Amino acid sequence: MHILTMDDLTNEDMLQLLHQAGIYQQSIEKIPDSYYAANLFFENSTRTKSSFEMAQKKLGLNVLSFDAQTASIQKGESLYDTVKTLEAIGVDVAVIRHGEDRYFDQLEGRVKLSIINGGDGMGHHPSQCLLDLMTIHQEFTAFKGLTITIVGDIRHSRVARSNAMALKRLGAKVQFSGPEAWMDGELLEMGNYINFDKAVEVSDVLMMLRVQHERHAFGQSFEKAEYHALYGLTAEREKRMPIKSILMHPAPVNRGVEIADELVECERSRIFKQMTNGVFVRMAMLKFVLQKREAQKHEFVN
Amino acid sequence: MHILTMDDLTNEDMLQLLHQAGIYQQSIEKIPDSYYAANLFFENSTRTKSSFEMAQKKLGLNVLSFDAQTASIQKGESLYDTVKTLEAIGVDVAVIRHGEDRYFDQLEGRVKLSIINGGDGMGHHPSQCLLDLMTIHQEFTAFKGLTITIVGDIRHSRVARSNAMALKRLGAKVQFSGPEAWMDGELLEMGNYINFDKAVEVSDVLMMLRVQHERHAFGQSFEKAEYHALYGLTAEREKRMPIKSILMHPAPVNRGVEIADELVECERSRIFKQMTNGVFVRMAMLKFVLQKREAQKHEFVN
Amino acid sequence: MHILTMDDLTNEDMLQLLHQAGIYQQSIEKIPDSYYAANLFFENSTRTKSSFEMAQKKLGLNVLSFDAQTASIQKGESLYDTVKTLEAIGVDVAVIRHGEDRYFDQLEGRVKLSIINGGDGMGHHPSQCLLDLMTIHQEFTAFKGLTITIVGDIRHSRVARSNAMALKRLGAKVQFSGPEAWMDGELLEMGNYINFDKAVEVSDVLMMLRVQHERHAFGQSFEKAEYHALYGLTAEREKRMPIKSILMHPAPVNRGVEIADELVECERSRIFKQMTNGVFVRMAMLKFVLQKREAQKHEFVN
Repeated sequence: MHILTMDDLTNEDMLQLLHQAGIYQQSIEKIPDSYYAANLFFENSTRTKSSFEMAQKKLGLNVLSFDAQTASIQKGESLYDTVKTLEAIGVDVAVIRHGEDRYFDQLEGRVKLSIINGGDGMGHHPSQCLLDLMTIHQEFTAFKGLTITIVGDIRHSRVARSNAMALKRLGAKVQFSGPEAWMDGELLEMGNYINFDKAVEVSDVLMMLRVQHERHAFGQSFEKAEYHALYGLTAEREKRMPIKSILMHPAPVNRGVEIADELVECERSRIFKQMTNGVFVRMAMLKFVLQKREAQKHEFVN
Repeated sequence: MHILTMDDLTNEDMLQLLHQAGIYQQSIEKIPDSYYAANLFFENSTRTKSSFEMAQKKLGLNVLSFDAQTASIQKGESLYDTVKTLEAIGVDVAVIRHGEDRYFDQLEGRVKLSIINGGDGMGHHPSQCLLDLMTIHQEFTAFKGLTITIVGDIRHSRVARSNAMALKRLGAKVQFSGPEAWMDGELLEMGNYINFDKAVEVSDVLMMLRVQHERHAFGQSFEKAEYHALYGLTAEREKRMPIKSILMHPAPVNRGVEIADELVECERSRIFKQMTNGVFVRMAMLKFVLQKREAQKHEFVN
Repeated sequence: MHILTMDDLTNEDMLQLLHQAGIYQQSIEKIPDSYYAANLFFENSTRTKSSFEMAQKKLGLNVLSFDAQTASIQKGESLYDTVKTLEAIGVDVAVIRHGEDRYFDQLEGRVKLSIINGGDGMGHHPSQCLLDLMTIHQEFTAFKGLTITIVGDIRHSRVARSNAMALKRLGAKVQFSGPEAWMDGELLEMGNYINFDKAVEVSDVLMMLRVQHERHAFGQSFEKAEYHALYGLTAEREKRMPIKSILMHPAPVNRGVEIADELVECERSRIFKQMTNGVFVRMAMLKFVLQKREAQKHEFVN
């Protein structure tokens, strides 16, 4: 059992995960048996890595430290051989982040440990998606009837892709906004493009994406101030948002670019709430995967 | 509740911490509840980091690994946002070392987790100070009446600053020695400058500071051998020390510079004893902070 | 009590370790007391480091994280002072890998913590040796009468050195094969050189060594394909191996160089089995060292 993309989960699975995450929010129940987890982050992401590690420790899993920067993979070892090694030494579940799109295609069906995708290239990021779903569900208790606008660099965003698909499957209306050059033809089949100044007035959820300095040479197409003026949440725009609507962002926020500095922790911001939920959702994912795994083992035995 | 500088502690707090550290020296008592600690070291310091981690593990805390070198802070995230993230995912206490003087000013009053300062720029280093106090207290059972000389790069030393202040508050007589160009006007208000050859004869404690190759271009002002001849503890000088006086150093020692190689582990050296005490003192600090925190939580509840 | 080279172990010790490793393979028994381990890897080796860490965690040891890359040793601290520091803060057993041959000579007799050698320069690698012995013993239940051929870069291999000596002591016949320029005069006193095409037909165990790109400039003496044709296990050669003979490799394998890609996981390959055994053997080594240590402590007390 792996969780690689949101397609690995039925709508029922998703709701079950949100339910379990909600239980973990109330109180932590440790997993009885001794399981071993390893986190393989070939791209930097302290936030996601720390969150998974916290989830693992709260569950009572043993966590093997693994520094992908100094790993044998630097000696030319393939990802398959690295993962197979972890399997051989007794790792039950590996969380992997890797810069290559669908890195997991070379692993699926060939390894016995479970894989949770911590982000692949410009592809998928299911744990971020689930924590966003949890945050929205906590707020509105349903997805049907909600209008959610995803704003920013749609084309290069794992978050945009996973979220748009999952939200649509669960019945929400998804829209996109931001620089038109950053839109994505395939994703636009799932929702319309909407002018940002209109979006702030009609959305239940504004989901702002990080402008990735790493991918875009700022100054070429946009200056920071210009981006903020055109597509950032300014104090003026925040005032025009509907009364119960909320503001989300996967973080880290470029303060003063996507969102005005003073609005990052405003009343309708759920940005730090998202991080807190991230731990509970990841606990639910780990439990889900390990339970399926245990069930499969018993099947093999009988 | 934070411990950022020695000013955060009353004399009573200090003595209570030393008492608690002494108890931990006798036997380890685990903290009952599940607390989570993270160590954020933006400057290299294996010694202090390992010591805090050992203290956390001996207490039974969960320790989140955090590699500041690959952290999101590298993507331009502020220290505030990084710490806020750790708070959001459930960290109770963060130990932070940072190159910037008073980095904690941007955090105080804005975060709910507790911070223990593991060293800020050329400012403060309270855990080092407390372990030095513990080592002196074990030896002499009091501070009043003691003469303590701090020797070396007074101006750039966190250790000198914290120790001089705390020792004076506790009633000891503090003196400074070393190259006159490395003295510090503000600190000299707390004690006199004394010629090193005189200091070795009248001090109960010689507290040698590390010559920081990182900060001083050796060879410019001093050659190593020249420093040793002028301000280092040579075999000849050691013989002139009073019978019960002791030798301290925050380590790592530049053997043959501050202290002759063969004296690093001599009978009056407490250098490795200081490291051992460091774990007990840090356990006491962690317990102190977490207990105050717990007390505050209950206040909020009632 | 240290384990630095295979010479630190009698034949009885070795067999006892294999026996204990076999018990750990059946079920894990935790060590009752609270021990602290640290892994100091000054050379990259994710595989060995992860395996030791897994062994430590399965035993219930506390593991102190230690990043040798950012350690104080970078400030010029000696290995002795680093290890002495770990001892001072309470570490019971340190696993050390270091690029210098016999780095442990500067430590032996001077430190109280126990050292397990995780590999020194081109010298020794006892845990790899023991896991190889375990794998062979599992297969053939004895060493006497076995013919084992070690193939490849004999001269630069810690594995070759440790294994040849231990296997010979336990009664096996050891042979060497591979490029003649890579043979080693001293080791050849322990066994004959044999033509590789002959070796595949007469060996119970083919122990292939990694071609170390790090040490050899490929393309100078051998092209990869040429090495494979001359000294690699091809499909054709594998067919000529005796029916019950097995294939071993310390990994990571250069697929298509030492071994044809499709043979790495063939039926007679024990390569991933070796990794699994590595955890059990390291558990046995840790227990062995800690028990001797405990016995010595009690001797001191009485």
